[in-house]
Amino acid sequence: MYITRRERFSAAHKLENTHLNTKENKQLFDKCNNLHGHNYELFVTVTGAIKPNSGFIIDLKDLKKIIQEKIIDKLDHNYINEVDFMKNKITTTENLCVQIWGELKEPIKLLGAKLYKIKITETENNSFEYYG
Amino acid sequence: MYITRRERFSAAHKLENTHLNTKENKQLFDKCNNLHGHNYELFVTVTGAIKPNSGFIIDLKDLKKIIQEKIIDKLDHNYINEVDFMKNKITTTENLCVQIWGELKEPIKLLGAKLYKIKITETENNSFEYYG
Amino acid sequence: MYITRRERFSAAHKLENTHLNTKENKQLFDKCNNLHGHNYELFVTVTGAIKPNSGFIIDLKDLKKIIQEKIIDKLDHNYINEVDFMKNKITTTENLCVQIWGELKEPIKLLGAKLYKIKITETENNSFEYYG
Amino acid sequence: MYITRRERFSAAHKLENTHLNTKENKQLFDKCNNLHGHNYELFVTVTGAIKPNSGFIIDLKDLKKIIQEKIIDKLDHNYINEVDFMKNKITTTENLCVQIWGELKEPIKLLGAKLYKIKITETENNSFEYYG
Amino acid sequence: MYITRRERFSAAHKLENTHLNTKENKQLFDKCNNLHGHNYELFVTVTGAIKPNSGFIIDLKDLKKIIQEKIIDKLDHNYINEVDFMKNKITTTENLCVQIWGELKEPIKLLGAKLYKIKITETENNSFEYYG
Amino acid sequence: MYITRRERFSAAHKLENTHLNTKENKQLFDKCNNLHGHNYELFVTVTGAIKPNSGFIIDLKDLKKIIQEKIIDKLDHNYINEVDFMKNKITTTENLCVQIWGELKEPIKLLGAKLYKIKITETENNSFEYYG
Repeated sequence: MYITRRERFSAAHKLENTHLNTKENKQLFDKCNNLHGHNYELFVTVTGAIKPNSGFIIDLKDLKKIIQEKIIDKLDHNYINEVDFMKNKITTTENLCVQIWGELKEPIKLLGAKLYKIKITETENNSFEYYG
Repeated sequence: MYITRRERFSAAHKLENTHLNTKENKQLFDKCNNLHGHNYELFVTVTGAIKPNSGFIIDLKDLKKIIQEKIIDKLDHNYINEVDFMKNKITTTENLCVQIWGELKEPIKLLGAKLYKIKITETENNSFEYYG
Repeated sequence: MYITRRERFSAAHKLENTHLNTKENKQLFDKCNNLHGHNYELFVTVTGAIKPNSGFIIDLKDLKKIIQEKIIDKLDHNYINEVDFMKNKITTTENLCVQIWGELKEPIKLLGAKLYKIKITETENNSFEYYG
Repeated sequence: MYITRRERFSAAHKLENTHLNTKENKQLFDKCNNLHGHNYELFVTVTGAIKPNSGFIIDLKDLKKIIQEKIIDKLDHNYINEVDFMKNKITTTENLCVQIWGELKEPIKLLGAKLYKIKITETENNSFEYYG
Repeated sequence: MYITRRERFSAAHKLENTHLNTKENKQLFDKCNNLHGHNYELFVTVTGAIKPNSGFIIDLKDLKKIIQEKIIDKLDHNYINEVDFMKNKITTTENLCVQIWGELKEPIKLLGAKLYKIKITETENNSFEYYG
Repeated sequence: MYITRRERFSAAHKLENTHLNTKENKQLFDKCNNLHGHNYELFVTVTGAIKPNSGFIIDLKDLKKIIQEKIIDKLDHNYINEVDFMKNKITTTENLCVQIWGELKEPIKLLGAKLYKIKITETENNSFEYYG
């Protein structure tokens, strides 16, 4: 049994490999090297057994609170390139997935469930899934 | 090869563990302990081989008919807490998934395919998946 | 210039004209006479001039707060037939639109804008618009 | 008869009134004063008579081309605060609507139709409409 | 007060002006001159007063039945160029709107309401509205 | 890590087993045996390691280009029954998935990634997934 919570954040970013020069970055990332932004959708999937007392895997209010504090409060209405867990990373959605996994894995374990998947949609055409 | 049919139902429910008292239910389920309702989306995924004669895994008209009779006719425009296969269950979406799996598994086998997944979205932010 | 804020609420209701008997209600409202529920989407459209200081018609945080307090806190995760501004009304979405208009008109005027439209979608197939 | 073309752009922006100081901007715009971004959806509605020869109001390929050249090429994957037609404007979606109207009105007239509405959705909850 | 019912149909069509030759049609309609198809969404908006007895403008079951019989049964899973009310018309969505208006205007009047708008979305990017 | 690119095509088709006669086809495929069409959504999922230089699994511009050339240019605004890779196949969405897999597998390998899944949604209610 899997449960998925969707949260959203609106953020700016710019793809840039700091080990490359301006021209190389332009060539590698094209218009994604410009400052721009997205309405990201984050889908956090957790798994676990149904608790007989509540009929829940996990209380969605608890899951929502953790995602809010650990991820949304940092990313929403901010510049991703300067968010603590993305510093010195290229801010691709691939890397966002990996870093968000790292931020959420332990707190979700403390709630008695297991993080299963991080999915992020960047636009209606592009989405990314990471299973740890 | 997997095929997924979406059906929808609009229903009322109220989360309540009948072994707990009013105050305990309020504490455990908060506002979900109030009578309220949702437009649920049910996604039934089946798997099987493609039949050479038809190019189908399963005739979607047959799948649709089974879901309608076994599930939608009972849940749509009704109060989930009183639907036969949900009686004496806490009406969380987790439990709904499990019970719907039980109702559909055999009828789908009779159509020559295999039930693979039950997915229910309760709101645009919360969804649940069950693999039996 | 018009600005529209969407908010959502999940609620139960039952169509019933208290001046009719059980059989007449059943005949008039069919399965909508059963207790059931929806994920409603409420779209509040206001109009006004753009303030040179802010570039806003209205601060969306203020609009959101009013809709939350006057409407969502009362309807979300509740039984519409017992919500104060719907008492003694048939709880059709038409009547919901009219009553929500009445609740929001003055508070929006106090924010320096003008309520223009209340739109409610009840399901993905049915929507309602009211212009006062 | 009205025809609406949707186009999309992903851009960064920051709400800022350059006549106010840092503290005043923070107070007025709150977290919208931070650098952030959105996936904007732009809906351009034009009106006109149906041409008997084609059954069209306007050839959508021509409309698409104009919106692309005049608007999307400038805004997509860019920082709105530095786009030519938004310079020295507060980059609210209200002002974006007004400026896009100004950019598209004449080119659409040259195609033999009339611009009727500019609608922009900034997030799934906030949308804006301008009728010139 | 306005109520909108959405219905869907999946159909094939081909844009062709029978007074033009093959080359002229190709030049005018480009790839839309090829046989292709769409999942159309039809939004029928009607207006009227709220009936005190039911709280309805119109019974949605009646509206749905009329749209089904007059429009969907003819267009769904068919070739639009050969549907009776589209014969000898160029099958643009503009013309579809006009013809559907003609088919629905009187039947809706017989239900005690007034047809207000026909909207058709052809793809997620292109939509058309007709007010008679 | 998985990345999914969505592309769309609008096409006509007709379910027909050329080894059966007209009556048998009608009985087997019912109204799907009529010429009709859809707005198909194609989701191509690829997997691979994140390249340290770019933070990408694969450059989405390259993936988009391959899907466009190999699939969309052939299917969009065309009659599926006559598209080269669907000739002599029953044009069910199941078979479309299998054939598209065959067309994309090698070109994606040449980009340094691995095709993982082909998903096609035919209508908002019916979708199909193929894992090779």
